[in-house]
Amino acid sequence: MSLINSSTKGVFVIACTPFAEDGSLDGESIGRMVDFYYEKGADGLTILGMMGEAPKLTQAESIEVTKLTLKRSEGKPVVVGVSAPGLAAIGELTKAAMDLGAAGVMVAPPSALRTDEQIVAYYRNVVETVGTDVPVVLQDFPLSTGVQISAKTLGVIFEAHPSIVMLKHEDWPGLQKITDLREAEAKGRRRTSILCGNAGVFLTEEMQRGADGAMTGFAYPEMMVDVVRLSNEGRYEAAQDLFDAYLPLMRYEQQPGLGLAVRKHVLAKRGAIASATQRRPGAPLSALAVKEVETLIERQMRRLDLLR
Amino acid sequence: MSLINSSTKGVFVIACTPFAEDGSLDGESIGRMVDFYYEKGADGLTILGMMGEAPKLTQAESIEVTKLTLKRSEGKPVVVGVSAPGLAAIGELTKAAMDLGAAGVMVAPPSALRTDEQIVAYYRNVVETVGTDVPVVLQDFPLSTGVQISAKTLGVIFEAHPSIVMLKHEDWPGLQKITDLREAEAKGRRRTSILCGNAGVFLTEEMQRGADGAMTGFAYPEMMVDVVRLSNEGRYEAAQDLFDAYLPLMRYEQQPGLGLAVRKHVLAKRGAIASATQRRPGAPLSALAVKEVETLIERQMRRLDLLR
Amino acid sequence: MSLINSSTKGVFVIACTPFAEDGSLDGESIGRMVDFYYEKGADGLTILGMMGEAPKLTQAESIEVTKLTLKRSEGKPVVVGVSAPGLAAIGELTKAAMDLGAAGVMVAPPSALRTDEQIVAYYRNVVETVGTDVPVVLQDFPLSTGVQISAKTLGVIFEAHPSIVMLKHEDWPGLQKITDLREAEAKGRRRTSILCGNAGVFLTEEMQRGADGAMTGFAYPEMMVDVVRLSNEGRYEAAQDLFDAYLPLMRYEQQPGLGLAVRKHVLAKRGAIASATQRRPGAPLSALAVKEVETLIERQMRRLDLLR
Amino acid sequence: MSLINSSTKGVFVIACTPFAEDGSLDGESIGRMVDFYYEKGADGLTILGMMGEAPKLTQAESIEVTKLTLKRSEGKPVVVGVSAPGLAAIGELTKAAMDLGAAGVMVAPPSALRTDEQIVAYYRNVVETVGTDVPVVLQDFPLSTGVQISAKTLGVIFEAHPSIVMLKHEDWPGLQKITDLREAEAKGRRRTSILCGNAGVFLTEEMQRGADGAMTGFAYPEMMVDVVRLSNEGRYEAAQDLFDAYLPLMRYEQQPGLGLAVRKHVLAKRGAIASATQRRPGAPLSALAVKEVETLIERQMRRLDLLR
Repeated sequence: MSLINSSTKGVFVIACTPFAEDGSLDGESIGRMVDFYYEKGADGLTILGMMGEAPKLTQAESIEVTKLTLKRSEGKPVVVGVSAPGLAAIGELTKAAMDLGAAGVMVAPPSALRTDEQIVAYYRNVVETVGTDVPVVLQDFPLSTGVQISAKTLGVIFEAHPSIVMLKHEDWPGLQKITDLREAEAKGRRRTSILCGNAGVFLTEEMQRGADGAMTGFAYPEMMVDVVRLSNEGRYEAAQDLFDAYLPLMRYEQQPGLGLAVRKHVLAKRGAIASATQRRPGAPLSALAVKEVETLIERQMRRLDLLR
Repeated sequence: MSLINSSTKGVFVIACTPFAEDGSLDGESIGRMVDFYYEKGADGLTILGMMGEAPKLTQAESIEVTKLTLKRSEGKPVVVGVSAPGLAAIGELTKAAMDLGAAGVMVAPPSALRTDEQIVAYYRNVVETVGTDVPVVLQDFPLSTGVQISAKTLGVIFEAHPSIVMLKHEDWPGLQKITDLREAEAKGRRRTSILCGNAGVFLTEEMQRGADGAMTGFAYPEMMVDVVRLSNEGRYEAAQDLFDAYLPLMRYEQQPGLGLAVRKHVLAKRGAIASATQRRPGAPLSALAVKEVETLIERQMRRLDLLR
Repeated sequence: MSLINSSTKGVFVIACTPFAEDGSLDGESIGRMVDFYYEKGADGLTILGMMGEAPKLTQAESIEVTKLTLKRSEGKPVVVGVSAPGLAAIGELTKAAMDLGAAGVMVAPPSALRTDEQIVAYYRNVVETVGTDVPVVLQDFPLSTGVQISAKTLGVIFEAHPSIVMLKHEDWPGLQKITDLREAEAKGRRRTSILCGNAGVFLTEEMQRGADGAMTGFAYPEMMVDVVRLSNEGRYEAAQDLFDAYLPLMRYEQQPGLGLAVRKHVLAKRGAIASATQRRPGAPLSALAVKEVETLIERQMRRLDLLR
Repeated sequence: MSLINSSTKGVFVIACTPFAEDGSLDGESIGRMVDFYYEKGADGLTILGMMGEAPKLTQAESIEVTKLTLKRSEGKPVVVGVSAPGLAAIGELTKAAMDLGAAGVMVAPPSALRTDEQIVAYYRNVVETVGTDVPVVLQDFPLSTGVQISAKTLGVIFEAHPSIVMLKHEDWPGLQKITDLREAEAKGRRRTSILCGNAGVFLTEEMQRGADGAMTGFAYPEMMVDVVRLSNEGRYEAAQDLFDAYLPLMRYEQQPGLGLAVRKHVLAKRGAIASATQRRPGAPLSALAVKEVETLIERQMRRLDLLR
């Protein structure tokens, strides 16, 4: 069992949860999808996140998804999303996930939090609930949670809780925040891993600002893997060339709510999962949207050919 | 097992969840509290609501609270709060609660809902998830959920789903909404039971506007029982006299967040539960707040003496 | 011309803006209403606040209201609400108001502010815009603005800007905040005047916690005047007796949105203004609401008789 | 004087407001910028919008900007943003703008609106306030306003008010909304012009879904002009090729809050305005951000060269 830590780098793909067309959990596709992600170069996975349709799973199903994913990951690190309205559920899910071999848990702030004090107190309660031996990823996603956490407040939280080892960074705009966090570390604050979300649409700049990699669910994980690798090699121009080829689709996939349907469509098309089915209330892509996505993929392939 | 229906009237007390001083569930106090509520005249109870610290309970504890409450209620109707971020959890909790003998379930809208269409679709999904044989209470509490539902949209939902038999009314201002709903019924729309929340602070006017009773957790349930009874007898002046005697404390108890600490303090003082302990992150009353509450109770007793 | 300062005490009534039945500004009623407020014991007035229908006035009308009110106030302090989406408008309105002889201006935070840093920066910009010689009232009303400011952040703002001399306190719950602010002052922070809003429904406790008075628009300002006076004399029991007599109506008047219609109805009934007319989109009280208010007033009068 | 109407097509650039380095209004740059926009092919302009720093202008300055822009536009249509917290200000600004020769006014919903009824009522009040002879653009920008308006509710508003002739479309995701609106028109509802915002990042798909053009402030208006033209000619592939070349910068410019700084930087660099200065509280681009923008522009130029 490997745990994430404050030096963790690379690409953790946010995994979707595959369902059969009748809406039942598709365990076979979980295995296939996990293989697919690692074949494309993923360093780890994150499951049961916002894109994982976690709220549509029963507790037993959540455990099942965790088990199947961990087994197939063969020791690669898997982070489990445990955000919930109450600390009790967070504690229960964390214990179950860590007992099964998870590498850490991810917690987004509940949307009622407002003042810096409330946010700081919340993460104190989370750490007390899950225990200081469990590595925690703080998900900073104001567009979805409504909670804005300044770089300074993140610093207060990181200082107080060494077990919060990673930031899932998806503030928007968020480039300055990465710079601010790294500058504070340069002045002595302990290091935190920063993996970036937001569908990857700022990954090139984020890497140059000091991010350690990506944690998002773009259906072409090889883009993230290569952009992160090229950036680490200092080959920013090549990274940006590659990034630009994928950007039109990334932009389309970033649409709130709609994004998951796009991702599942592409993953099914690529053979990673058997069906693009979402559980209610998720809706499939319209015929027009499918056509738009197909056009974007065709253009993407042509453009990638030009890069080779 | 009795189910609530669209003619249900009376007082359903929103029950708190008693904990021992070490934070463990206090099963003995659950029994004592249930007895207390019925001795004071409650017609039924509602458990695991926002004031019931439900998010702080594990799933097993939620089941335990439901079991103990239902057993001690000896056939009196108990509504179970099942609001959750996802339909799967709502379905699971509902099944468990109804199997144990609950009288119905209560569902508040998740805070991301905005347009009328989204709200209508949400309750359609809820009814499909729990099944049309389960009586549902729609909790309309914009101050807490951020979701505003117009009287017209409530009507659309009620027309579409006969199994939504009751409105827990706590819009603020909300008197006109009761009038609007009753007028629509007078013109032919099917009847829905309306029990009022908001800590009871508009109970007298609400009864005159056409409410069927109260569903809130004021620590002196006898006030609600008597105001509802007197109102039903047309003795509005007497109802208001009684109400006014309790209003200063009701007002204090209505403070968001702080209210539960006040209620537990008063319930412990009245012997209904052993300890006012809340689970984290709930905080106990400050010494100054305790003094204010004690003063209000003393004055309330003197005033009630004058009414006798 | 008198300016407010950090020692200002007493009752500043939030004045409504009287309109004739055709919606035109009723200058004659402004004079009558100003007289009424001072006759009832007001120490000062606040105009063009949220309850003053300020957004429905043209800039010229706002100036006219300010002029008429200041002239009739004959030297008594008048605070002018200048909250606006942009600093330019705040600067313009402030200059106009102070040139006319206002005692200070009141600024609520715009609803987009979230982090403590953003809130602190906002008030720095406000003070830079209006100038450090203009006394500023910080209106802390999260229920309306959506902006939560902790006691600690208020302290940071007060320390940085001596010209912010007063807090219009209407957080809810808010009693602990008064205690926290006064305790910080006891430890050396400079004093700020605290006048309380929230329709007056916590005025007795607020005075005991250290408030300097009230700043709200309850249509019976004599209640506020007497409660503040009795509290300052240490006669808390008498203050609470008086308060309780008015509480049923205060509670009714506190309803968001509806409250202004109630206030204007009562002020018209008491002869302070000629008409209860609001400008669009304000709506008059329904017949049922009028009946409820009339009943509450009758009961209030009977109860006050008993106190004499 | 030309007015917009329900058939208006093309590109209306959202103009910034140029300031000198000392923060004063830079009238000379207004003229230069207006020329620049039209030279690049703009069909019209929109001023005093969210990106126009309107809240930072005094009323007199707003009038001055309107005058200068209209004069230099020599009969081309100029829409004026008049969103304000109150109807009185909307009425005043509209009258001033239309008297000066504006082609119409744009109104976004205030953020407190929630239910469909409230939204419908708001635009009824707006139309009554400005008069039915003034063409109105409804700005649908939920990310900024927090107000979500369904396609159905837009339809109700459009049916009720023929003077609302245009939708500034910037819902996200929003492609289905364009399809829904056009389908309703195909079934008989009167036509409304749809110009798209959102920094242009979905312009190619939007045009294919039935939009009439763009209304946003991307600092390379020639992209919008050419994409709209190519789309109208059915040359979607060419439109997308061009679009893709600009997308990396568009994406960067779309960052909320930061976007205006990027736009002013690019406009100054291109010689359209003298200085990138924003008024307080706007901040200039950091050195790192400038470098990122410069890199994106260089890459964009190289890519455009390849297309020629």
